[in-house]
Amino acid sequence: MDGRRLSALGETSLLAALVGLAAADGRLAVGPGDDAAVWELGGRALAITTDSLVERVDFLRSFQTPWEVGLKAWGAAASDLAAMGFRADFGVVCLICSPDTFEGTVLDIQEGMLDAASRDGALLAGGDVSSTDGPLTIAVTVLGSGPPGGAVRLGGAQPGDLVAVTGRLGGAAAALHLLEGGRVPPEPWRRRLVAPVPRLAEGQRLRTAGAHAMTDLSDGLLVDAARVARASSCGLELWADHLPLESEMEHFFPGESVQLAAAGGEDYELLACLPGPVALALASSSGGTGISVVGRVSEEEGVRLLERPEGPEVALPSQGFRHF
Amino acid sequence: MDGRRLSALGETSLLAALVGLAAADGRLAVGPGDDAAVWELGGRALAITTDSLVERVDFLRSFQTPWEVGLKAWGAAASDLAAMGFRADFGVVCLICSPDTFEGTVLDIQEGMLDAASRDGALLAGGDVSSTDGPLTIAVTVLGSGPPGGAVRLGGAQPGDLVAVTGRLGGAAAALHLLEGGRVPPEPWRRRLVAPVPRLAEGQRLRTAGAHAMTDLSDGLLVDAARVARASSCGLELWADHLPLESEMEHFFPGESVQLAAAGGEDYELLACLPGPVALALASSSGGTGISVVGRVSEEEGVRLLERPEGPEVALPSQGFRHF
Repeated sequence: MDGRRLSALGETSLLAALVGLAAADGRLAVGPGDDAAVWELGGRALAITTDSLVERVDFLRSFQTPWEVGLKAWGAAASDLAAMGFRADFGVVCLICSPDTFEGTVLDIQEGMLDAASRDGALLAGGDVSSTDGPLTIAVTVLGSGPPGGAVRLGGAQPGDLVAVTGRLGGAAAALHLLEGGRVPPEPWRRRLVAPVPRLAEGQRLRTAGAHAMTDLSDGLLVDAARVARASSCGLELWADHLPLESEMEHFFPGESVQLAAAGGEDYELLACLPGPVALALASSSGGTGISVVGRVSEEEGVRLLERPEGPEVALPSQGFRHF
Repeated sequence: MDGRRLSALGETSLLAALVGLAAADGRLAVGPGDDAAVWELGGRALAITTDSLVERVDFLRSFQTPWEVGLKAWGAAASDLAAMGFRADFGVVCLICSPDTFEGTVLDIQEGMLDAASRDGALLAGGDVSSTDGPLTIAVTVLGSGPPGGAVRLGGAQPGDLVAVTGRLGGAAAALHLLEGGRVPPEPWRRRLVAPVPRLAEGQRLRTAGAHAMTDLSDGLLVDAARVARASSCGLELWADHLPLESEMEHFFPGESVQLAAAGGEDYELLACLPGPVALALASSSGGTGISVVGRVSEEEGVRLLERPEGPEVALPSQGFRHF
């Protein structure tokens, strides 16, 4: 009576079932199911989130150094706080590795996490080590903070909002395809894949500008947009001709760059839904990581990728990364 | 140039090296290296700790149900907050499992964690799932709270203090030995092994009574006492005849019960160092989980197990559980 295996169930259904068991509780300002949980205490809102990196699933040691594995472990976890519009304060880490791991490997991973935390104005407050007969696994939990009532949730998008993203899309997926094919990716794309930088400053900027909903792009634009649409009970219409592609993407992947930007995961940029005038003002301002308007929020539920505003729908072979 | 493998290095040295990299920082009231890190904010002290359970290392599905795996995952993590004298408020969980895991298994683990959190007056605030080609792995982070300046640290033991422990020792190790030998352990011992209850109320009682130092007994009395001794720059002298053995231990393991109680891990009781009169008063009071005086703090560094106060030293073949 154990029912289906996870491979048949799918990640979205599993997460929904797990969140369904954890009933909402008045003690939390934001409960299970969002990018991070939020607890308000003493005039501050605290956000907590956890994320894991598993060797062979989330990283390959042949593609990145242990120091870069540490950078990615921190960055992927802290990105969930960026998606709330919060800062990162402290992290704790579970390092789970086999007894034949080299000491230097573990210390380099720790250095990477410390360097990434320091770059983000945060610190590693502690952790635990454990042994395994399986792959190297790193679980990072980050505690962050922001103003009470200020967390930007998944479920606040409103029809009429514009959809904006930070930075450029597709670089991480492009780097992975090139590495898997034995080719050398442009270094900026490789760095995106192996050492993503959480958009903490941009998240706070989008929060203070009045974002209604926000998430980070970890599983791919279409998958993550679908989470916002579902939580907001509305639809997201995205425009392929507006997607901020990494430059030279068409050179490496002729005709496939929209696929990489829309379905490729691990860019760790932010997607936000904002009132139209605010989104347009942010997109036209210069400096820092750019912000691009890439679509609009509609009443029709689900996510649709159009060639351009009012244009025909784009059919894509793949929808993004899923664990199960 | 990666140097030694972890199996040659040992867990204590690895943890010391990892903690050494994470420099102390004034933002934390208690930094890396203690049972939990503590951050003071808005008139409260927040403690955060993380712990992982790995299949075949920390649990076997043949010895316990998935629901019990969930109970243990929560209990082992929350026990670190008990060791600070704090309460548990919220947890987040990384569930890492292979795609051929049954949905029912994962949901039962989640139910176990929810039931354990609820029992402890806390709740699960969120989490993440990830896939692996290795063993089922659960990383739990628990956030707790207590009075500012109140956290009981590892390093506060003072020569002249008495050493006290909560509850009874050796049951978890005895259950494991019996199960590994194909025998059925008494159910209370099996429950200790598969579903330890963190001593949160006892930890707060020991804190308010004025404990100078405290830790939880996860790796075994001698190993955990050595951590307190090292952090406190003093010694712990333990008395074998004072150890609160599980009843009937001698019946199942004639002549070996002191070994099980002193070197067996996973009892998840608390060890505290307190002023003598306070320890004796707590030990003589009745009700709840009992508290026993089991030794004293000395100036001579290290841990010594004596047959009885002023008696000869006991030689033990094993010192407790280590991951590497």
